[in-house]
Formats: sequence, structure tokens, C-alpha cells
Amino acid sequence: MDDNLMEFRTSTNVPEVTVRRLCQYSRHLEDLRDQGVKNISSKALSELMQIKDSQLRKDLAYFGAFGVRGLGYDVEGLSSRLATILGTVKPYSVAVLGAGNLCAALTSYPGFKPHGFHIQALLDNDENKIGREFHGIQVYDVKRLPEVLEMHGIEIVIVTVPVKIAQELFDQCVECGIKAFLNFAPLRLMHDRTKVKVADVDASCSLKVLSFFLTQSEE
Amino acid sequence: MDDNLMEFRTSTNVPEVTVRRLCQYSRHLEDLRDQGVKNISSKALSELMQIKDSQLRKDLAYFGAFGVRGLGYDVEGLSSRLATILGTVKPYSVAVLGAGNLCAALTSYPGFKPHGFHIQALLDNDENKIGREFHGIQVYDVKRLPEVLEMHGIEIVIVTVPVKIAQELFDQCVECGIKAFLNFAPLRLMHDRTKVKVADVDASCSLKVLSFFLTQSEE
Repeated sequence: MDDNLMEFRTSTNVPEVTVRRLCQYSRHLEDLRDQGVKNISSKALSELMQIKDSQLRKDLAYFGAFGVRGLGYDVEGLSSRLATILGTVKPYSVAVLGAGNLCAALTSYPGFKPHGFHIQALLDNDENKIGREFHGIQVYDVKRLPEVLEMHGIEIVIVTVPVKIAQELFDQCVECGIKAFLNFAPLRLMHDRTKVKVADVDASCSLKVLSFFLTQSEE
Repeated sequence: MDDNLMEFRTSTNVPEVTVRRLCQYSRHLEDLRDQGVKNISSKALSELMQIKDSQLRKDLAYFGAFGVRGLGYDVEGLSSRLATILGTVKPYSVAVLGAGNLCAALTSYPGFKPHGFHIQALLDNDENKIGREFHGIQVYDVKRLPEVLEMHGIEIVIVTVPVKIAQELFDQCVECGIKAFLNFAPLRLMHDRTKVKVADVDASCSLKVLSFFLTQSEE
């Protein structure tokens, strides 16, 4: 978050908040499917999400007609339509810049592989780490960045390096043709938004949102 | 993200996307202040954020009148007003549930302390970790949760434990009066949204947003 919440529009003009909700609809539908549920009304699905059903219908309307009056949505069908829309029907090769604690947490995170995100390569400049493996994934010398990105067919790069080297490494990746980044470094990476997408994970911003909530609830 | 992006409204009816943008205005203003900039127009500030200036003015309008026609915003003044609004003028005591790799990354993250978020206690059930320190912060036995939360005056809890124990520990924290959570565990924590605020950090959702972007850009 939250580049994300800026004025990013895709070619189909879908706001990013909508795309994020699609991810969540998708998750709920997968849960329902696993529970054996065949159909769900927009009202019931929106209640699961704790949003208005008008919001749900508006979000889906970007992508065409869904659901049958009186029957609601076909759980399996909508789930697979959403996977197609989100592009998660195909696998992605992912690299992580920086082989520290956060990288270790990411390589052991159980939520990526089931959605087709495969971490294939880690890159660091620490000679004690280069050549080692994290959960079976090799740490390469960051000097070999272009070669490693090409060798593994990397499409998404996760940035976990310190601020002072983040922009430079990011720029190198962009030069190598990488178009999608998940950034954990506490800085705004300068980039051409028409060509590259950066999703920032800014934990201190999330803490400030909590702070705002606590402050409001005291008033 | 993204509880966050649901229909969460504070008592003042401010959408969470606005609160997230306030965090980002705040960060830009701090940078400008550090560069010695005294005033900035809404147009220049919104360009830094890559949003429309009407959006910036609308966001700020929730909180009263800001800026002077022809002079723009007083950088120092707006920065401190935003800190008051966000509640970050006071420090917060934070605890982390789960002393694994992610916890290690969080305790060494440089972005929290400058904004007043102080990690004071870590909790785990692993006897090899209990009693040890991560970056000078002690790991307590999670069995002592209520006592540790009280002892350190914890107001915000960061959840990094595995899914299977996350809800139970979360519920215990809520019973102890904790109202604000930053959740890294890949599940939706069930809670009463009128009393408790959960900000989810869902990296796999962010990857899906990137996937959507890559898919769109191919079309």
C-alpha cells in the first residue's frame, strides 16, 4: 500500500481499490467453493465482505455481466472468471532483492505458491549469503542481476533492500524489462507510472491508520 | 490492506483511502520541511503525489480549512496539523505476536520509531526463543500475554503467527482491551468492526494487483 491508492488506472480504467476488492471476492469465493457452496447472492457475498452490495455489483460491472437474477452468482464460475481477470490463471516467476529477515519470511510464506507466485531467485551483495539457499531458493550475487532475471524468466521483483541502494537496484531491474514490483523498502521508488507498476507495502502507514482510528475512538 | 478498503468509516466518516493518503501527504511534507521548503501550492503537492489537486483539497476538507489563496500551504503548519489528525503526536507501545523471521524484520525496520511506534515486547511459544532478545526487545512466553500487554501498556499488536493459532491469540488480545491490530497472517481475523480495527498486510493480494496490471498491459 499505497501507491495503489493513488490515481492508478489500468487501460480498462479500473480503480486499484476495485482490483484489491476483486482479490478479496476471489478469496471468499474460493473458501465457499471449498465448503461445497454452489451459488451465492450478491447480498450474501457483500455481507461476507462487509461492504454494500451496490459496491460489489459496481466492481464486477467493470468486467461485464455476472450472476442470474434470483439465482445469484455461480461460485465456481465467478471464481474462475475473477482468476482470469486478475491474471492468476498463469504462474509468475518472482525474485527477491535482499536476502535478509524479510526475505526469509517471504520464502517461507505459505500464501504465494497456491496463487501461482513462485519465488525463484534471491539476490544479495553479502558474500556470506551468496551461494546459500533460503528454503531451497538460491541466493545470487546481485552483480549478476540481469543474468539472473533472464535465467529465471522473472516477471515480478520484490524489493526488501535498504533504502540507500533500493532506487539503484530498482532502476537496473526496470532496464532489464521488469514491469511489476512489490516494494517493502520505506521509500517511494521513482518510476514512470505509464510503464511500471509498483505496489508499496508500507507498514508504518498502516500503523498510522491504526493511530488515526485509536485517536478517533477516544474522542 | 484491506480491511482497509472496505466500508470502514471513522466517527468523522472519513474513508480509509483518505486516511492512507493523509499518511502520504504527511511523508511528502516532512521531506519538503527537511529540504527547507516553507510553502507549497495544492497543485505542487498533488503533483508530488501524482493525484488531482481536487482530490487533495477534498481529503483535507474533512478536517477544516487549510492553506491560503495565492500562498498555498504552510509546510510546517500542515505537517503538524496532519500529525495531530493522525494521532502520531503521541508515542504508541507495540507488541509483536510471533518471534520469527518477520518479527526480526519488523524489530530492525527503521521506519517505526521516528513516527512514534515503539515495539516493546515480542511473544512466542517456542522455548528456544522465550527469554531471548531481538534487537534489544525481549521475547516473552505467549502464555503470559495479558500480563505482558498490561506491563508494557501495549496499544497496538502486530500479528505474525501462523494461521492456525492467529484467531485464538487475537481474541485473547481483544479480551485484554487491545483495539488496533496490524495483521500479517494470511487470514481474515473475525472481529467486531465497531470496536476493533484490523489493518491487514496481504502481500499475496498485492501480488495479484501486480498480476492484474501485467495482464492488462499485455492486452
